Amino acid sequence: MDPIILASQSPRRKQLLQWAEVPFEVIVHDTDESYPPDLPTEEVPIHIARAKALAVHQTLSPKDQKERIVVAADTVVVLKGNIIGKPKDREDALSILSKLQGREHQVITGVCVKKGSKEKVFADLTRVLFHPLTNAQLAYYVDQYQPYDKAGAYAIQEWIGVIGVQSITGDYYNVMGLPVSRVIKVLEELD
Amino acid sequence: MDPIILASQSPRRKQLLQWAEVPFEVIVHDTDESYPPDLPTEEVPIHIARAKALAVHQTLSPKDQKERIVVAADTVVVLKGNIIGKPKDREDALSILSKLQGREHQVITGVCVKKGSKEKVFADLTRVLFHPLTNAQLAYYVDQYQPYDKAGAYAIQEWIGVIGVQSITGDYYNVMGLPVSRVIKVLEELD
Repeated sequence: MDPIILASQSPRRKQLLQWAEVPFEVIVHDTDESYPPDLPTEEVPIHIARAKALAVHQTLSPKDQKERIVVAADTVVVLKGNIIGKPKDREDALSILSKLQGREHQVITGVCVKKGSKEKVFADLTRVLFHPLTNAQLAYYVDQYQPYDKAGAYAIQEWIGVIGVQSITGDYYNVMGLPVSRVIKVLEELD
Repeated sequence: MDPIILASQSPRRKQLLQWAEVPFEVIVHDTDESYPPDLPTEEVPIHIARAKALAVHQTLSPKDQKERIVVAADTVVVLKGNIIGKPKDREDALSILSKLQGREHQVITGVCVKKGSKEKVFADLTRVLFHPLTNAQLAYYVDQYQPYDKAGAYAIQEWIGVIGVQSITGDYYNVMGLPVSRVIKVLEELD
């Protein structure tokens, strides 16, 4: 089987496919990540993942469009029904983390797996509960780890996740950015 | 503050303390890991962690016994109320994994933090649900990853955990061998 095409440059998603021993190459393409304002929250990452997969699929040769499998994903952090995006700056990162600490939020990753005219999409949801954290801890994390490219301004596998996450319910790897075991099941079904 | 003394040679526990940025050194000492047969399951890892901590504590100088903090941990895998140990051989590893796949088990890590005459112990429990896995997958994992030093014959951060774990409830790092965020809270209390 040809390696799958991962439509993402996220180092975390690449690492997860490596751990899962799924051969892949990375092809990304500029994608419009906007979405209809009335879209239900859990549909948003699916909508964006599909847009990413289609954008890459369209750049392939007709032969590759038929034969190759494109996998795209988008991860959102949801607090009280609202999607928390990537932080704009230091102040925004601290503001986001101060809302997340001491309570539970949800991490939803939408996935689109496309091969020829076939397309499978799904979303995986994990609940994450943070311990109460001090402002000094949040400032230390933001300044040392610069989480500006991360939805919700944190990565669970970094310092703040190790010292700050009390418990999760669901797939840990989904919080890292890809619900790998479900992706593999979809790949098996497509074959 | 002096680095803590980690009474464990587990590479996973060392890695977790590094990720948490907790300074430590490793000192281990032979320990009797037996336990009274009537001990409740969740007390077993606490009992063994305490024995490990005491064994190391006794090797320290009187000054260090007063001032240094010793952290020990023991992790057990529990299926239907029974503790699943480390696999004896290939056949045993396959037998253990065939029981774990397709259902939920519990991972309990007991922790003992000792400084002078003060001692804090606790246990942390995480529920882990495996997807159904094929015999070929189990054999591949055992032969490639040789999980003979691992309670329950698997490590969640290895291939079988990435492709096989459907969801967890609790602390992921507890499944890796150390409930780091709770350990840090205990260290803060002792200070």
